[in-house]
Amino acid sequence: MLRLYDYLDSGNGYKARLLLSKLGLAYELVELDILRGESRTPDFLAKNPNGRIPALALEDGTVIAESGAILYYLAEGTRYWPEDRLARAQVLHWMFFEQYSHEPFIAVLRFWYRHGPMDEKRRALEPEKRKGGEAALAVMERHLAGRSFFVGETLTIADIALYAYTHAAEDGGFELSRYPAIQAWLARVAADPGHVAMLPEGYVAEKA
Amino acid sequence: MLRLYDYLDSGNGYKARLLLSKLGLAYELVELDILRGESRTPDFLAKNPNGRIPALALEDGTVIAESGAILYYLAEGTRYWPEDRLARAQVLHWMFFEQYSHEPFIAVLRFWYRHGPMDEKRRALEPEKRKGGEAALAVMERHLAGRSFFVGETLTIADIALYAYTHAAEDGGFELSRYPAIQAWLARVAADPGHVAMLPEGYVAEKA
Repeated sequence: MLRLYDYLDSGNGYKARLLLSKLGLAYELVELDILRGESRTPDFLAKNPNGRIPALALEDGTVIAESGAILYYLAEGTRYWPEDRLARAQVLHWMFFEQYSHEPFIAVLRFWYRHGPMDEKRRALEPEKRKGGEAALAVMERHLAGRSFFVGETLTIADIALYAYTHAAEDGGFELSRYPAIQAWLARVAADPGHVAMLPEGYVAEKA
Repeated sequence: MLRLYDYLDSGNGYKARLLLSKLGLAYELVELDILRGESRTPDFLAKNPNGRIPALALEDGTVIAESGAILYYLAEGTRYWPEDRLARAQVLHWMFFEQYSHEPFIAVLRFWYRHGPMDEKRRALEPEKRKGGEAALAVMERHLAGRSFFVGETLTIADIALYAYTHAAEDGGFELSRYPAIQAWLARVAADPGHVAMLPEGYVAEKA
């Protein structure tokens, strides 16, 4: 059986969980408390030397790390990874955009707000993080105007990659009401078959 | 003809130039001075709303942005993108690693050192950037021990993606002599057919 090493409050991990759900694939969830260093143990570093979740272990023990690589691996041969070379490049465009221009701002602010500590150093960096996050949301808003999904007319792993932290952006102080095209798209993604929530009801984010 | 919007001192742009050279593809190079805001003009934002180089315009005017997406698009169907699903996922793993865990440290320090200004705010961030860069190099060193290339036995776009800023890491104050497996790999990549240098001889980095 597939095994997913994950931390429930991670949007990067949620990307994998969401696609696994859509594909109806059974998997064992191994929760690592990243706040307590459980992704930096010798045992886990042997699986992913970069010490980050999510990591997906295949039946034979091979481990795939990086949320984008996991999404690609699971989506290949399914409707979530397009047939066409240009469409695939566009899917990857948005997945790299998410990791470079979106996650480091929106996910990081969310993490600081939820898990802390919001110390002086982080407060000094907050305006720049806020600016980067708003810029990413503005790029998404502009792209989504008149479109149903990021690439083509159906949901792909580009949508899953961007949904994970965008739908939770208000946790980091972003106001999604300012982005109507994003809000409509979030609703479309959440209505797509096989959707699951990121967190169980009543989940409480612990402090670092 | 393909058209590449680029800035010569960008490692992200160099990735595209290196693969174009290996594939023997002719292209028109359109240099944008990113230090003077030329990637933020209305004209360029219509091509890439995220305002970043490199961007590759196809014959029909379609634009692909994000270095990783450009690499995939050009490599599909060639020996630089493996046939096997798992190998492809591993190639993407290293490409996402580069954009998330390597470039924001190694490329950013290089940029600050070369183009400035190295102001007080950046000096305060330097230790964290240094630590992140050294961590990325350590992960690479460990992976490359006993391997010729990042995935499989031949060069893929994972190697091109990681070569670009790693080979220039000393510009940002990193000592590559501490990483013998990386150094041997850099030499293998540079010896691979179709190699081109990042910069013309005598290039002088301008100040921001």
